[in-house]
Amino acid sequence: MEPNDLRNLAERLLRGDLSVDDFTQRLAHRPIADVGVAQVDLDRARRCGYPEVVFGQGKSVEALQRIFQALIAAGVDVLATRISTEQASQLAVSFPAGVYNPVGRTFRIPLAGGPAKLTAPQGHVAIVTAGTSDLPVAEEARETALWMGAQVTLVQDVGVAGPHRLPARLGELAGADAIIVVAGMEGALPSVVGGYVNCPVIAVPTSVGYGANLGGIAALLSMLNSCAANVAVVNIDAGFKAAYVAGMIARRANRP
Amino acid sequence: MEPNDLRNLAERLLRGDLSVDDFTQRLAHRPIADVGVAQVDLDRARRCGYPEVVFGQGKSVEALQRIFQALIAAGVDVLATRISTEQASQLAVSFPAGVYNPVGRTFRIPLAGGPAKLTAPQGHVAIVTAGTSDLPVAEEARETALWMGAQVTLVQDVGVAGPHRLPARLGELAGADAIIVVAGMEGALPSVVGGYVNCPVIAVPTSVGYGANLGGIAALLSMLNSCAANVAVVNIDAGFKAAYVAGMIARRANRP
Amino acid sequence: MEPNDLRNLAERLLRGDLSVDDFTQRLAHRPIADVGVAQVDLDRARRCGYPEVVFGQGKSVEALQRIFQALIAAGVDVLATRISTEQASQLAVSFPAGVYNPVGRTFRIPLAGGPAKLTAPQGHVAIVTAGTSDLPVAEEARETALWMGAQVTLVQDVGVAGPHRLPARLGELAGADAIIVVAGMEGALPSVVGGYVNCPVIAVPTSVGYGANLGGIAALLSMLNSCAANVAVVNIDAGFKAAYVAGMIARRANRP
Amino acid sequence: MEPNDLRNLAERLLRGDLSVDDFTQRLAHRPIADVGVAQVDLDRARRCGYPEVVFGQGKSVEALQRIFQALIAAGVDVLATRISTEQASQLAVSFPAGVYNPVGRTFRIPLAGGPAKLTAPQGHVAIVTAGTSDLPVAEEARETALWMGAQVTLVQDVGVAGPHRLPARLGELAGADAIIVVAGMEGALPSVVGGYVNCPVIAVPTSVGYGANLGGIAALLSMLNSCAANVAVVNIDAGFKAAYVAGMIARRANRP
Amino acid sequence: MEPNDLRNLAERLLRGDLSVDDFTQRLAHRPIADVGVAQVDLDRARRCGYPEVVFGQGKSVEALQRIFQALIAAGVDVLATRISTEQASQLAVSFPAGVYNPVGRTFRIPLAGGPAKLTAPQGHVAIVTAGTSDLPVAEEARETALWMGAQVTLVQDVGVAGPHRLPARLGELAGADAIIVVAGMEGALPSVVGGYVNCPVIAVPTSVGYGANLGGIAALLSMLNSCAANVAVVNIDAGFKAAYVAGMIARRANRP
Amino acid sequence: MEPNDLRNLAERLLRGDLSVDDFTQRLAHRPIADVGVAQVDLDRARRCGYPEVVFGQGKSVEALQRIFQALIAAGVDVLATRISTEQASQLAVSFPAGVYNPVGRTFRIPLAGGPAKLTAPQGHVAIVTAGTSDLPVAEEARETALWMGAQVTLVQDVGVAGPHRLPARLGELAGADAIIVVAGMEGALPSVVGGYVNCPVIAVPTSVGYGANLGGIAALLSMLNSCAANVAVVNIDAGFKAAYVAGMIARRANRP
Amino acid sequence: MEPNDLRNLAERLLRGDLSVDDFTQRLAHRPIADVGVAQVDLDRARRCGYPEVVFGQGKSVEALQRIFQALIAAGVDVLATRISTEQASQLAVSFPAGVYNPVGRTFRIPLAGGPAKLTAPQGHVAIVTAGTSDLPVAEEARETALWMGAQVTLVQDVGVAGPHRLPARLGELAGADAIIVVAGMEGALPSVVGGYVNCPVIAVPTSVGYGANLGGIAALLSMLNSCAANVAVVNIDAGFKAAYVAGMIARRANRP
Amino acid sequence: MEPNDLRNLAERLLRGDLSVDDFTQRLAHRPIADVGVAQVDLDRARRCGYPEVVFGQGKSVEALQRIFQALIAAGVDVLATRISTEQASQLAVSFPAGVYNPVGRTFRIPLAGGPAKLTAPQGHVAIVTAGTSDLPVAEEARETALWMGAQVTLVQDVGVAGPHRLPARLGELAGADAIIVVAGMEGALPSVVGGYVNCPVIAVPTSVGYGANLGGIAALLSMLNSCAANVAVVNIDAGFKAAYVAGMIARRANRP
Repeated sequence: MEPNDLRNLAERLLRGDLSVDDFTQRLAHRPIADVGVAQVDLDRARRCGYPEVVFGQGKSVEALQRIFQALIAAGVDVLATRISTEQASQLAVSFPAGVYNPVGRTFRIPLAGGPAKLTAPQGHVAIVTAGTSDLPVAEEARETALWMGAQVTLVQDVGVAGPHRLPARLGELAGADAIIVVAGMEGALPSVVGGYVNCPVIAVPTSVGYGANLGGIAALLSMLNSCAANVAVVNIDAGFKAAYVAGMIARRANRP
Repeated sequence: MEPNDLRNLAERLLRGDLSVDDFTQRLAHRPIADVGVAQVDLDRARRCGYPEVVFGQGKSVEALQRIFQALIAAGVDVLATRISTEQASQLAVSFPAGVYNPVGRTFRIPLAGGPAKLTAPQGHVAIVTAGTSDLPVAEEARETALWMGAQVTLVQDVGVAGPHRLPARLGELAGADAIIVVAGMEGALPSVVGGYVNCPVIAVPTSVGYGANLGGIAALLSMLNSCAANVAVVNIDAGFKAAYVAGMIARRANRP
Repeated sequence: MEPNDLRNLAERLLRGDLSVDDFTQRLAHRPIADVGVAQVDLDRARRCGYPEVVFGQGKSVEALQRIFQALIAAGVDVLATRISTEQASQLAVSFPAGVYNPVGRTFRIPLAGGPAKLTAPQGHVAIVTAGTSDLPVAEEARETALWMGAQVTLVQDVGVAGPHRLPARLGELAGADAIIVVAGMEGALPSVVGGYVNCPVIAVPTSVGYGANLGGIAALLSMLNSCAANVAVVNIDAGFKAAYVAGMIARRANRP
Repeated sequence: MEPNDLRNLAERLLRGDLSVDDFTQRLAHRPIADVGVAQVDLDRARRCGYPEVVFGQGKSVEALQRIFQALIAAGVDVLATRISTEQASQLAVSFPAGVYNPVGRTFRIPLAGGPAKLTAPQGHVAIVTAGTSDLPVAEEARETALWMGAQVTLVQDVGVAGPHRLPARLGELAGADAIIVVAGMEGALPSVVGGYVNCPVIAVPTSVGYGANLGGIAALLSMLNSCAANVAVVNIDAGFKAAYVAGMIARRANRP
Repeated sequence: MEPNDLRNLAERLLRGDLSVDDFTQRLAHRPIADVGVAQVDLDRARRCGYPEVVFGQGKSVEALQRIFQALIAAGVDVLATRISTEQASQLAVSFPAGVYNPVGRTFRIPLAGGPAKLTAPQGHVAIVTAGTSDLPVAEEARETALWMGAQVTLVQDVGVAGPHRLPARLGELAGADAIIVVAGMEGALPSVVGGYVNCPVIAVPTSVGYGANLGGIAALLSMLNSCAANVAVVNIDAGFKAAYVAGMIARRANRP
Repeated sequence: MEPNDLRNLAERLLRGDLSVDDFTQRLAHRPIADVGVAQVDLDRARRCGYPEVVFGQGKSVEALQRIFQALIAAGVDVLATRISTEQASQLAVSFPAGVYNPVGRTFRIPLAGGPAKLTAPQGHVAIVTAGTSDLPVAEEARETALWMGAQVTLVQDVGVAGPHRLPARLGELAGADAIIVVAGMEGALPSVVGGYVNCPVIAVPTSVGYGANLGGIAALLSMLNSCAANVAVVNIDAGFKAAYVAGMIARRANRP
Repeated sequence: MEPNDLRNLAERLLRGDLSVDDFTQRLAHRPIADVGVAQVDLDRARRCGYPEVVFGQGKSVEALQRIFQALIAAGVDVLATRISTEQASQLAVSFPAGVYNPVGRTFRIPLAGGPAKLTAPQGHVAIVTAGTSDLPVAEEARETALWMGAQVTLVQDVGVAGPHRLPARLGELAGADAIIVVAGMEGALPSVVGGYVNCPVIAVPTSVGYGANLGGIAALLSMLNSCAANVAVVNIDAGFKAAYVAGMIARRANRP
Repeated sequence: MEPNDLRNLAERLLRGDLSVDDFTQRLAHRPIADVGVAQVDLDRARRCGYPEVVFGQGKSVEALQRIFQALIAAGVDVLATRISTEQASQLAVSFPAGVYNPVGRTFRIPLAGGPAKLTAPQGHVAIVTAGTSDLPVAEEARETALWMGAQVTLVQDVGVAGPHRLPARLGELAGADAIIVVAGMEGALPSVVGGYVNCPVIAVPTSVGYGANLGGIAALLSMLNSCAANVAVVNIDAGFKAAYVAGMIARRANRP
């Protein structure tokens, strides 16, 4: 807390506008839901603009249920990633409003009232894939960007081996505020896309390939060394993170 | 070129608005300056919003001079990175208007007339460093962001070992459209910054450290695996690229 | 498109030899079959001499069927690699003319009419393996080379531990236009073969071995560092790619 | 054996205080239980302060039983780690006093008489986790520290993405003699904890994460490069070893 | 700050014991010396028990001077590591009381009055090296432990190739509260030491060796995988950090 | 073939001692059994002293049978390694004289007549393991050494964490011509053994361990960097190869 | 030597056409020039189509001179690679006919009479570079291809960041028999070139770049994982080897 | 010490054959020369058959002198490896009988009287190199083997690229008790040699090469994965260690 805020609180306390209890709570407040297995961060939306997203891999269904309930109780749209079909089928019983994307492995629970943020798209995110096997990562990204309120365009299977495929689709990328490029194997596509566009490219290496692709490391290194200046990179298969960064860029670019 | 554009050109040709020569040049035009050692991309600003930046490392002074001249002839602000003091002292003779930053190892040549883009800052980029040894990378980023027209805030030496240093400076980051976090060693700072802010964080691992930092690989891996969702990563010591991405975000966020 | 071609098109347009629609299509033509999950590159044969080959791993049977149908409709011999026995048994129902090689995991569908290219072998490709476990990769290579129209010789199990085995078989390699050498473990065989022959050697490291072979990385590094000058390398287990490169060399060496 | 001890033994032998047999046994004594498959080190408690702990992974139940019996016969509290539920269910039959922790995968058999060391806690060990998936490693650590006689505090799910969660819990760490910090992904938490506390931090990287976390290597490198001076590191997922080191520190800090 | 402390401050403010200014400063206080190039953490001693140590590598002499002066002004004993002989000869002019250890590359400036902590040793740290080339790292450790007030024993050159050398020196390790083991090459010594002693072993891999030692990575991996349970590890060549952890253990074990 | 041998053959040809056919066969002879899937090297025993050993992993039972039959037909004792229990149960039907070692995964078929080499042990090989989990690799080594005619001593579970276990067993190693040391985790045992003995030590890293042992790479690097001069290394888990080298040393040391 | 050749030799010996000495020399002949430090392979041209090329790095000038003289004496055009300017200036004195390329670091000595192979180009090799820093590798390739008798086209600085540069130059690649693509950083260019052409692409990764390019490993992995089927790879910076393979392909494609 | 020896000593003490002082010294004896910087192992020859060899790299000339003097005083032939020309020129002054090998970087000091072991060669060690650049490592091996009393044969520059070079020299390897094969680049030569001989092959990878040879790692992995069963491996560039192992094998094979 900044000095000015502190001085302000102190003066309100002295003026009697604030009780000692309120004052203490203001400074010591922990907007955290303790659900035993997890400390759910309920303050994330205030600090970062979006609520906490749940990473489902390795969590029990019971743990997921308790976390979802804490988020819903706080009035937050739930988004969970890396949800297996087994987890999803059980969660669907407890949260019938939830929507499972089996390709992207995401589970979303839109709030009953519907959030204001969905009334008008908060910017435009384009997602480009190199090959058909990159789709699961692209779908995770698409679900995340939609959850953030962005309009999403998906351009599939335009990898560099067929070099005339990308130029034919550039028109669809024209209005994007940020472009996510998903590619495995040699991961060359973000560099090529980067050379055509005037917005940031968020590159996602995928573990698609075999042999010396080393589970995606080859594509990752390729993207980090991209000669295109507008390319930043996220972790292997990290469709969620790419979309989160892209969604932030898009929303900021479309502030009223 | 899109079908509509082609149809349009064809019709102008048929109407006689366009000669066969002009028509041919329009479609075959190569906005490239061939300076022997290099094919300077003069079309970059149109496609990507900013002109080509020159990577100085390993280039001869003569090659740099020819590239600079081609860019200046095209009316472009020159920015060159990884310029050694030896290269700079020779370039300063040929380009007396050039400004060399010996810490960031950049060489800039502002255009005589002054570009319109500098009249009002094009958004706000903050740069945060973990330690004093990260300064050269931060300076390269600062020069790049300034060249792109952004307002720049630099917050130095607030790494996690002194955990009260960052919160004390958060106020300076409040207005940023994008935050560049530069860190070596364990590269933990971007995750911590990411948890406090509502804009994208562009993380730059540096090769600062020793032993198992593996020339920056440790920090790079750390940043790629960041648990903060708003963190994207660029190559080790890539201050230029981080600033280029951040500058793009900032400008887009401040379009009139 | 080159200036001369463009000028030619423009003059044909002006002469009325070409309608605006035809003109537009000529320049904007996209010889791509959009089958939803994939953008099948139908222009590959024109550009590269051979049609697109389908990478089967990770694709659903339904996706494979749609891609195969698009290729067949374009009059192209289908070759698919990394097809599991599960995929193959379903594909065999839809494409009864298809031939599955369970060792090499390839699925080929020869065109009914039979392509002219099969009337006379288009050069000679030899395939050499170091051990019996390298056979699946060699079979993938053999199927690919046959699909490209080459005559194929297979010399098996002549690794360096029995150093008299290779010299005894050199006669069979004499007429080859290109030699594929498949080896796991220490990957020494391509260097030895390379020292005996006067044509390019395409080395394929395999993931055969254990411990410090690191899934084929040991053999890969060995082959990249070969002291024989005529050895180029492809990815681990990439029998298809080795044969594709070898087939191109063989055909070119036997142009009428 | 030191010269003085030897001289002393020699003099006792000469004085007749010691028979030749006793003398020989004193110098040649091997406090090892040979149970066929293993040489159980019964002298460990004397040398190192604690008896040998059994690493269960890959051992047959029969081997475990024989080792446990040898330890119990020597009057030692048994602790075994990496015990699967399958192993545990069989061991529970033979050792009904045994306690299995299915999350931490440990099996403990407290001695009937109860060791004196449990009457008063031997120092205070705190365990901090970054995320909910780090719990199995933390539980292994907790069981080990309890077995060593320490008082244990567990603070869960306070990773850096929610930066206000750790400061809210610092009070619980105040009395600790050593703090174990368990974290996967980017492994940043030990550095942050290290900056707040005045005792050693034992960092345990976990294999939690995906992509470029490389099975925990990313977190391991991060922790080794920590800019906090009070951070030492153990192997990936090595909850047992972290607790063993922490327990030694704690006991030493609380010697009567 | 904990709720009770906050409530207490609020009550003192209401009682008039604290002015608004004092109150604000208490909560917003930043015990940081801003010396331009660095934010010197003056609060470290309070939080962590020891003041900040300066990492000299890559810092200019001017920067070091400003940081030293800030520390001295705060009444703190200066310790700087990785100081080259060039840096040291210049620093010796400005700080004539400084002591440079050319083997360990440390620079210490004892406070004029002499700290109370030196009147009685704060525990006992032993340092063991495998070979003569490990001495620089051991000396850095020794200087650090002395700066922390510990008694230090150095046992040199007792690596495992001469297996009778270590047992002959075990007596010297008997009283240690923590043992630092410094080893390059295969890094086996910490495991062997660990099997003989009842205190924590802090292992320091060194970059001594050649070939497949990979700059110390071989020894690092060896130490992380130690079968001795009481071994924790720090970064390659990190003598300072090992001593810092050992010194903390030793002091805690000798609290009055 | 050496000049003298050639001259000799030529003279025998001229003298009529050798027909042209015999002469041709002598020089072109290929002592290889072509069994389709493999080229069995029947000349190995003449060149290398021992017949070819079969690597069973990944080979079909049918292939193994054909290779075994070719070896038996050539009068050779069969040894096959990496034979699964599934393979073994089928091979036992075809080769009832075969002996399967389920721990070492070897299959041996002693010749009916019994080889002369078994009448007197051909030297003495000792095998030492660090832990109980190293037994499968040690058993593979033991079977191989026995097949080569060596006397074998096995000393189990004497890793460095219990440092008094090895010295107690040194007497059993005294007569060995070569010592195989099998160890996982940090792989320190070969260095320690090497320091006590006057014969070569063949070190075998095992994949036993977890986390940063990297599937045995940690132990492998440790052994390669051993400070003991008499330590050579073989591949991870390569019990067979260690025994083959050790057996050769032992036999040579005991030539009549 | 094949059986037929042997039988033939035997019959000539019996007929008296061949003396025993000649016969012996024929079979034992070693077309190797023993120059002390090296065994120069004078038989290479017969076996492989081209004479041995000298790798200059790390060889003394004296050794080079002796090797050059042996090659010249055998009537062979000398080509040496990795020749430093220091080596070259001394070699120029001994071999005034030699031509040094300071960028490509090659030294060639054309035979006085001029080889027949230069009268007509033996096929067409194209060399494409991604950036200006790749020139040294491209020049080594160019010198090698010229030495092999090929016609060479060099297309420079057409990396993917300026994606319109390559299509503008495709016409120059049209007639090539093999295309060498030289690229550092992310190594994406070979994949893009591969998608446009119908001949083999030999990809050469260069060590140009910084940070996570790992001295060329990033580009190497990228090229090995290329999604273009006609791309084979050689070692990092191996311009010589790429040209050797390309030259072989070109010559074979242009046999009379 | 074994029980029988202890009992024996005890009885001699009781009989008065041994004084308490003598008895104590027998058991506590430390045959170590403490020269300050090093603990010279004077017992090595008794335990391991050969005295300690000095690793010169990184040691000061003064340290070397003290160690040499201690060894000479103990009547031991000195051998030091990795001695630079600078070190050697100074050592030559103090030890005029010393012999420096500038290629192998070894320094030997034969004892004045001449050791008995040199009167008859203790077995036969052959050293084979792949290329001329491997000579320094081979020379280190040669010096070491000579110091151990072996007869040494050196066969140079017979790498696999000229496959007829090795068979031409096999006769020279016929009598060897152990063969050291030194190779860089792809490290294929040990496998080929291994297939021809009936004695152990000790493979030494060298750091000769460039690019993906990774400082010798490529050759190291190749040798570890050798398909020849009689190949064991030592560290990169470890000529000394290879010769030490080979020398031990040779001596044992030639025991009187």
